[in-house]
Amino acid sequence: MTITITAFEHSPDRGKGLARDMRVRWALEEVGLPYDVRHVSFKAMREPAHLRLQPFGQIPTYEEGDLALFESGAIVFHIAERHAGLLPEDANARAHAIAWMFAALNTIEPPIFDRALARILERNEPWYEQRLHALEISIRKRLDDLSRRLGDADWLDGAFSAGDLLMVTVLLRLKGSDILDDHPNLSAYVARGEARPAYKRAFAAQLAVFTAASAG
Amino acid sequence: MTITITAFEHSPDRGKGLARDMRVRWALEEVGLPYDVRHVSFKAMREPAHLRLQPFGQIPTYEEGDLALFESGAIVFHIAERHAGLLPEDANARAHAIAWMFAALNTIEPPIFDRALARILERNEPWYEQRLHALEISIRKRLDDLSRRLGDADWLDGAFSAGDLLMVTVLLRLKGSDILDDHPNLSAYVARGEARPAYKRAFAAQLAVFTAASAG
Repeated sequence: MTITITAFEHSPDRGKGLARDMRVRWALEEVGLPYDVRHVSFKAMREPAHLRLQPFGQIPTYEEGDLALFESGAIVFHIAERHAGLLPEDANARAHAIAWMFAALNTIEPPIFDRALARILERNEPWYEQRLHALEISIRKRLDDLSRRLGDADWLDGAFSAGDLLMVTVLLRLKGSDILDDHPNLSAYVARGEARPAYKRAFAAQLAVFTAASAG
Repeated sequence: MTITITAFEHSPDRGKGLARDMRVRWALEEVGLPYDVRHVSFKAMREPAHLRLQPFGQIPTYEEGDLALFESGAIVFHIAERHAGLLPEDANARAHAIAWMFAALNTIEPPIFDRALARILERNEPWYEQRLHALEISIRKRLDDLSRRLGDADWLDGAFSAGDLLMVTVLLRLKGSDILDDHPNLSAYVARGEARPAYKRAFAAQLAVFTAASAG
């Protein structure tokens, strides 16, 4: 059954792989599933056909036969649950990996995403520096905890899992910032994620969309 | 096997049921599982014993035999996966319910939680009014979409699920605000959640902790 996902027609990050389709591409590459991509414009994302698939007018979506899904976390979980490679078989280890999936999306991503938004939307506000500082303090608090927990392990809980996949995509938004670089074990963790062949294939696929659109 | 969760020793919301242990209590009540609660002080939350259970020094945690879990979303999912009542049996319907779990925690909760935090921490900042306004615009955008999708249905996708449970707990933070009241179907949805016997039992249990602590 063909899998079709949606992604931005014009990548807002110019192919840096920060849009949420990257997580789904990476998960599909890890388990070796081929997929098609439908590119949607910002205008089309608010039209009824897309809103039926994605109630909040976002990407990615996932279609496979009569199943239509939204939310990158749920899509990655759906893939991980059905194909070997992203969730351990042992019940407790599997539950831990799922806890890291939720931690990535509900505990670590929100302040990191807020910072990214503030850097775009609030840059000219008089309070910008102070607000950015406050956001960086909350991110650092989380990363201190995450860094302590990771220690010198390769991955958060045993073998690479969907929890690591989501955590790496969330931390990638901080790549090149002091916030991440001040935690060398987290920088190395992100680099380990990026070095995976499945990550590289997914990254190249989303970059090719941007390159083609720019050339067109 | 005894289930033990953690909750705040001193409820910051004075027993309003907004802390994240409420989701876990509610899920346990829905499926009819008894549980013990260990109350932790803000000081104890940063101590090694708690950080081993919860790397970010938060509540709730979940212990059952040799399994220890954190992240309210992951705990609710763990309960829902093992006991009837919170996830449909049909595979596609189950995937939809999981998508709503992630939507509640990764799409709807972040701006709502940011607003709650801003109202406490940023009230005296020069940017407060403007920032609150910006946050309310993003929340309203999400709620417009959610309200349109819910329509006149009782629950987000067929029968009540763990997706509704998480979504109701997230929306409850807006109870009494214009932001929620401007969407009568969402107010009614939240009220339907609160009217469930399992919700009422969970709410009473967390309120009793606050009442006892206040009397003590």
